[in-house]
Amino acid sequence: MDKKISEKVINRLTLYHCILQDFIDSGNEYISSKQIATLLRIDDSQVRKDINMLNNSGKSRVGYDVKELKKSIETTLGFAKTKRAYIIGAGNLGMALAKYNNFTNYGLNIISLFDNDKTKIGKEINGKQILDINTLPEFTTINDIDIAILTVPGKIAQQTADYLVQSNIKYIWNFSPTVLNVPEDVQVWNENLMGNFLQFTFHI
Amino acid sequence: MDKKISEKVINRLTLYHCILQDFIDSGNEYISSKQIATLLRIDDSQVRKDINMLNNSGKSRVGYDVKELKKSIETTLGFAKTKRAYIIGAGNLGMALAKYNNFTNYGLNIISLFDNDKTKIGKEINGKQILDINTLPEFTTINDIDIAILTVPGKIAQQTADYLVQSNIKYIWNFSPTVLNVPEDVQVWNENLMGNFLQFTFHI
Repeated sequence: MDKKISEKVINRLTLYHCILQDFIDSGNEYISSKQIATLLRIDDSQVRKDINMLNNSGKSRVGYDVKELKKSIETTLGFAKTKRAYIIGAGNLGMALAKYNNFTNYGLNIISLFDNDKTKIGKEINGKQILDINTLPEFTTINDIDIAILTVPGKIAQQTADYLVQSNIKYIWNFSPTVLNVPEDVQVWNENLMGNFLQFTFHI
Repeated sequence: MDKKISEKVINRLTLYHCILQDFIDSGNEYISSKQIATLLRIDDSQVRKDINMLNNSGKSRVGYDVKELKKSIETTLGFAKTKRAYIIGAGNLGMALAKYNNFTNYGLNIISLFDNDKTKIGKEINGKQILDINTLPEFTTINDIDIAILTVPGKIAQQTADYLVQSNIKYIWNFSPTVLNVPEDVQVWNENLMGNFLQFTFHI
């Protein structure tokens, strides 16, 4: 499959994946493009087009085999290739992400959390330890971390990002409400919750 | 301004808004399109095009007036028009969202949280009470709620959504990893965290 899969397609495929998991959990064996399209309120032909791009063995008269289609999406989106990450900031959002077991199914392995709060350091969340932020540079090297998930308050987000960059992190998934200034070889994905919210509610 | 402002533009404008707030906090009076473009790694001309769409008085030799530009974005995106919401599920994610004071700046007023856990009901988070899920239908009517923010576990997301629909909620901001099946007159925005993650990390 073409490596230049667009962001929109990736987004839709993960939603199909969600639906397929629900169908499997409910004991369904087959699914039609129409069923997926109706749930997502998109066009039936769009669903078929997306699925046709996958290395999928095609559909039978009764629809796509849900397990097989789910597997095809996983292969295409590279769920099998695990990425190692840690969470910076053991506040509510950091905790919520640490507890979210679904990440593992998508190839995201959260190794630990970091914080500067002495009352939190040493505790465990969902089998992941909260470590002292001062030990981060060494930890990053030893554990070969790909991604830092930044959940600290906006006010300290930039200085924390600087520290991550110094520690040789190249990918930052930014949940703080701050646009980070980082060197060119560092990638930032802004999880722009307010932007998403406004896209949704603009017409209310 | 045209009401048909695209999702991509809304997303960029909220990021500009973030940057402007940072500039104000650092005591800067002016900003150039180039400064914004560099931080977001997008094209300079794109930033100017977006800003030209706003009802903004234009820029001086030294750049855009940050306070004025921020105000223009707020007017255009309708931050002034407050939407009333509650959070369903007082787990870590629900708590994190309840504590996120930034929402108010964007016109999102979170009134309360709901849960079915007796040990949580009655407690307060950031000035918002956790209420018994059984009192939700009446609360919705009395308080004229626009939006339900769904942060319950995937397994009970659909049944909770059914309950929200019965309670006459028309907008659901869905943080659960489940695609919801709702009537046509109900809008769902899927906060597809894994989709976002995969868009970001697909090439790692």
